[in-house]
Amino acid sequence: MPQNKSKAPPVVTVSTVELFRARKVAIFLRVAGGPQSYDSETRLHVSENSHPEKVDTLLVGGTVLTMDAERHRYQPGAVAIRGRDIVAVGDEGDLVSRYKAEETVRFDDHLVLPGLINAHTHMPMSLLRGLADDLRLDVWLHGYILPVEREFATPEFAFLGTTLSCAEMLRGGTTCFVDMYYHEEEVAWAAVEAGMRGICGETVVKFPTPNAQSYEDGLRYCEEFMSHWVDHDLIVAAPAPHSIYMTTPEILEATTALARQFNVPHLMHVAETRDEVEELLATSALRPVRWLEEHGILEHPLIAAHCVHVNSEEIQLMARYGVGVAHNPTSNLKLASGIAPLAEMLQRGVQVGIGTDGCASNNDLDMVEEMRLAALLPKAVTRNPVAVPAEEALAMATIYGAQAIGLDHLIGSLEPGKRADLIVVGLDALHQSPFLETTNANIYSHLVYATQASDVRDVWVNGRQLVRDGHLMRIDVPQVLERASELGRQITRFFVQREGRILDKLVDIAPLEQRETFEVQVKGALRDSAAFYKGLEHPDVHQIAHTSRDQYDTYFFFDRNAPQRLRYREDQVIQLDGTVHPIYNLTLTGPAKEAEYEHSVVLSRSRYTAEADRSLRFYREYFGPEKVVEIGKHRERYHIRFKGLDFAVNLDQIQSPRSAGPFVEIKSRTWSQRDAEQKARLIGDLLGILGAQPEDVLPHDYADLFMAPEEE
Amino acid sequence: MPQNKSKAPPVVTVSTVELFRARKVAIFLRVAGGPQSYDSETRLHVSENSHPEKVDTLLVGGTVLTMDAERHRYQPGAVAIRGRDIVAVGDEGDLVSRYKAEETVRFDDHLVLPGLINAHTHMPMSLLRGLADDLRLDVWLHGYILPVEREFATPEFAFLGTTLSCAEMLRGGTTCFVDMYYHEEEVAWAAVEAGMRGICGETVVKFPTPNAQSYEDGLRYCEEFMSHWVDHDLIVAAPAPHSIYMTTPEILEATTALARQFNVPHLMHVAETRDEVEELLATSALRPVRWLEEHGILEHPLIAAHCVHVNSEEIQLMARYGVGVAHNPTSNLKLASGIAPLAEMLQRGVQVGIGTDGCASNNDLDMVEEMRLAALLPKAVTRNPVAVPAEEALAMATIYGAQAIGLDHLIGSLEPGKRADLIVVGLDALHQSPFLETTNANIYSHLVYATQASDVRDVWVNGRQLVRDGHLMRIDVPQVLERASELGRQITRFFVQREGRILDKLVDIAPLEQRETFEVQVKGALRDSAAFYKGLEHPDVHQIAHTSRDQYDTYFFFDRNAPQRLRYREDQVIQLDGTVHPIYNLTLTGPAKEAEYEHSVVLSRSRYTAEADRSLRFYREYFGPEKVVEIGKHRERYHIRFKGLDFAVNLDQIQSPRSAGPFVEIKSRTWSQRDAEQKARLIGDLLGILGAQPEDVLPHDYADLFMAPEEE
Repeated sequence: MPQNKSKAPPVVTVSTVELFRARKVAIFLRVAGGPQSYDSETRLHVSENSHPEKVDTLLVGGTVLTMDAERHRYQPGAVAIRGRDIVAVGDEGDLVSRYKAEETVRFDDHLVLPGLINAHTHMPMSLLRGLADDLRLDVWLHGYILPVEREFATPEFAFLGTTLSCAEMLRGGTTCFVDMYYHEEEVAWAAVEAGMRGICGETVVKFPTPNAQSYEDGLRYCEEFMSHWVDHDLIVAAPAPHSIYMTTPEILEATTALARQFNVPHLMHVAETRDEVEELLATSALRPVRWLEEHGILEHPLIAAHCVHVNSEEIQLMARYGVGVAHNPTSNLKLASGIAPLAEMLQRGVQVGIGTDGCASNNDLDMVEEMRLAALLPKAVTRNPVAVPAEEALAMATIYGAQAIGLDHLIGSLEPGKRADLIVVGLDALHQSPFLETTNANIYSHLVYATQASDVRDVWVNGRQLVRDGHLMRIDVPQVLERASELGRQITRFFVQREGRILDKLVDIAPLEQRETFEVQVKGALRDSAAFYKGLEHPDVHQIAHTSRDQYDTYFFFDRNAPQRLRYREDQVIQLDGTVHPIYNLTLTGPAKEAEYEHSVVLSRSRYTAEADRSLRFYREYFGPEKVVEIGKHRERYHIRFKGLDFAVNLDQIQSPRSAGPFVEIKSRTWSQRDAEQKARLIGDLLGILGAQPEDVLPHDYADLFMAPEEE
Repeated sequence: MPQNKSKAPPVVTVSTVELFRARKVAIFLRVAGGPQSYDSETRLHVSENSHPEKVDTLLVGGTVLTMDAERHRYQPGAVAIRGRDIVAVGDEGDLVSRYKAEETVRFDDHLVLPGLINAHTHMPMSLLRGLADDLRLDVWLHGYILPVEREFATPEFAFLGTTLSCAEMLRGGTTCFVDMYYHEEEVAWAAVEAGMRGICGETVVKFPTPNAQSYEDGLRYCEEFMSHWVDHDLIVAAPAPHSIYMTTPEILEATTALARQFNVPHLMHVAETRDEVEELLATSALRPVRWLEEHGILEHPLIAAHCVHVNSEEIQLMARYGVGVAHNPTSNLKLASGIAPLAEMLQRGVQVGIGTDGCASNNDLDMVEEMRLAALLPKAVTRNPVAVPAEEALAMATIYGAQAIGLDHLIGSLEPGKRADLIVVGLDALHQSPFLETTNANIYSHLVYATQASDVRDVWVNGRQLVRDGHLMRIDVPQVLERASELGRQITRFFVQREGRILDKLVDIAPLEQRETFEVQVKGALRDSAAFYKGLEHPDVHQIAHTSRDQYDTYFFFDRNAPQRLRYREDQVIQLDGTVHPIYNLTLTGPAKEAEYEHSVVLSRSRYTAEADRSLRFYREYFGPEKVVEIGKHRERYHIRFKGLDFAVNLDQIQSPRSAGPFVEIKSRTWSQRDAEQKARLIGDLLGILGAQPEDVLPHDYADLFMAPEEE
């Protein structure tokens, strides 16, 4: 654990410093008469027997909830701050007589308590707030978050997003965070400028990231980043190997070594989803926490986010190894991950803090709301209304949280010698009135069940006041909001264009085989199949190949302005031995007709085909079509040569949504206007030979048969 | 359903009107230039072909979310209001050209949507906010809520509490509520003065209530109350038979008849807890909704609160009968009732609204938070992140809610002809930025997942503006807060005194047999039991009766300032045939010693004994002792006569927490100083006869043997 003894300025690469200087000017306020300088030179060192002792700030008046081991409270209470530290906590009368303060702040009828600790978040993702909600995890991640991050997650993004997150968190009483993202150098700088305390975890994964082409690059960045922030007063730089499934044992070995070398904790996501546990069980026969133990990861302090799917054995292991857990109730609900066994974790002595997770899965950074859920959910799950009382929830957001992230020697409670990270909360809003102090527990339940983040009035971090009467003192909020909005508009534009171009969405998820092909084709209804088979015997028709198959096609239709349609095909080719070999593919087609020739033969452009390696369900949610049409048919497929040219001839019997047919379909690839015209003529002849009349010609896609006329 | 055609003033008893007039003066503001008069005389009736048409208010600028069946939205949109009604909703340009308004309100960058509908609450209980949290339902209800309600739930309480609730709800965007409490006449009056719309359900139960000595009285009050509010513009007065278990079939028959007579819905709590369902199953073999069907209750419109423990059959029944469900996610979590099967209810077409329940089980009236939970919980429960998307949650708080409570012809969506109940919500707070409009669903998820009640800027109910830029226009908030605080202090005082007097808490729950008795008594350690049995044979000792028993005593110790101790005894008397007949009682004793005589014989006062008809668990949580000591012992009990006086002599062998003994205990009731002294002398003699020496004398209670010395 970092000891933060020295205040030497961190070493950073010049380019980062310049980037930072250039960017910060407009975002951070230089408040006249604002926070004092906190260099060690200017800090007072008053000998113990001088009376009254000088301090910088004395908060006096209301109730002080210390959250120390005995849960001392003082009413009317007081807190004395000198430099970055708490000098004394106690009764108002006592402290007023013992200390002479530069500034005295009265907080009558308010509550003073330790700043809240957000034990797990992704700071820059505030810029992706509400990007895409109410989706499955895979669609949300692969379809929305990752593509946008690939485009936007620059150092500037990390810096701005962190500043926005700091503003929201400070405004809501959070004074310390544990982050996992990319470009953590920027996250750390933004936090320092905002005045916040944080553990900044640089994400290391086995895949390329926004700031590392390979995991070796990622490890190098991580090490360099960590070396910049050794012993910093506000920042702990740490390695954050994302999870077991996003890393390898080698990566984890390297990040553990880094964590050990720099004496900082190790950050991971652990057992967030059921799938994650089941996949690990399938490959290693170990559940996540057991796997981590086997690989020696638990030997060094670990902050494990989520831990939704941990069993009793794992909970006991976490207690034994002192693993810090970051519980994220809203995110776990929203992504349908589940509800963590919080009551059991606390009962077995696991150190549990509370986190918001990132804004893309929450969608805010409201620790008061998370405390409330941390207290509420276990009651329903365990059917026990006394499970996780309000006091425990507040402890998780303060002192337990500090223990979970290894900073309880500095923060988490109001005690002399700890850093002055504290907040003042109002108690008399409409939604808080009246406050009935009928038992000693009421102050905690009032905070957890009735208070809102907006009731936070003042915030100090490391002895410096950052929020005064609800207003941020160091962050230029209108400026940050304007920049965030501008970026938001860019993201929206990018997204809307991408949504409009179904192809781009396809490219984003599929290792696409880009095949732009033109086909001439026609479909015709047949009276019966006898004429067709007779036609195949025609002397000009040379049969080359034949297969039987069942095809299940799902057509996605989008709006009129995006005339593309996407077909998901499950092609079950019936082998000679009767077995079935399914092939799945996606085909994106443009407007139905590129050109039309005689006999209603059309020229169509089948633009892209890709192997479909995900489920239909995934594609449906990812592409979000306006209309879906499903067609099941049996197809006898013939490859023939007619008058020297190749054609595919299909005899189709539609089976669902209702029985229809038989139909004949004739098509051929083409490459030129002249070729297309020639084939169109031949197709007209073939159509007659195979038993269809000109008046029996059908629309291009079977799907069109099953749509109401006004919809096409 | 009420049609609200007439605006005749409601008929109320003179006393109520006077009470109301006297009280309302200081609470309600008479804002200069405030809301217009809405008498029917002054309402404009402009003919359809006059252009531009005159309206009172035109809201123009931002996004209008109508929540109509097609979910129309307009951006930039506009809403035209005339009198109490919405005249038009549409594009800004269109409405600006069609209407000429007295007042035009711009809401650029804001959102206009229907006011939120709180489908289940207990308005006056805002005054009991946070009275007692994190307790079991029985302790919470019988130990805290009911005693305080018995003392405080006056008409004034109902009026003030409703005003406070209206203020909090309006400030947070709620424009309509469904209430269940007592003194509903006051609730209705307070709501009308505040300008809110509500269905006011007078609670009818089989027990005495704060405003009815019997259920017949309750029904009479209910009928009179309902008759006062027929066809009122804002209030629907309805009967609220609390639940199946708190009423009888006769009561439900009477309330159904009332609901039918006045053409209003019927309000009940249904299937809130598992116990409720199991008890009903045990007595009737029917689950709650089936029971209601059997008893004909579903034939008339019913608003059923909670419905946590309903199975698929019941859900289908509710859909078939059109039962309106009020879903209360926070309350159901907090009281550990469970999580209602919301996704299935919606899927099967049940009309579901959202409620906050009362402040004593929530602890606020924040509909935005309830919407969020309504969307979040089903995802985790069904493991499906697309269950109940944000749009559905907002629909439940608006149009579905209106359908559930039978007011969708008036409210729930912004449509011409409906009442102008609408709210303006800000979109640019820190916790909402940036707003990424990447899909059509984002506006809903932004509202549900990132917005807070404090983001509501303006509120109109029935065409009258009640909140402007976050400030309540008709309610004098400081005045209401001061009165609520004063009442809060009274409740706290009452409660703290009662808590200090353990006896009062005992009286509140037990039909107590008040027995103030004095006893002289002594305990001594024995080397072995042989001397005791030999002593029983002494010629001066006449044995009258003998029993054997196992006694399990639990002592509750409170703090030094409350020197009482409470003993819960499970007394298992072993009958002659070997069977055991357990007796449970509570004994409250004062200070250990009233006086001390020679031989360490003490005079003690056993003040109250009551039969203990609840569980130890209940008493432990209800009395909240600082320390609990459990003693299990075997007792041979002898009733003897010694030198003409009666004594109880016990030979005790302590078995838990550890084995100790044998001990002899001698005691006798006494009534005078002289008698006590004489008995003390005789007890000294007896002690020797039964084998104990003066140096073997023990403390008064066995419990004291097992407490650390510094604790006594």
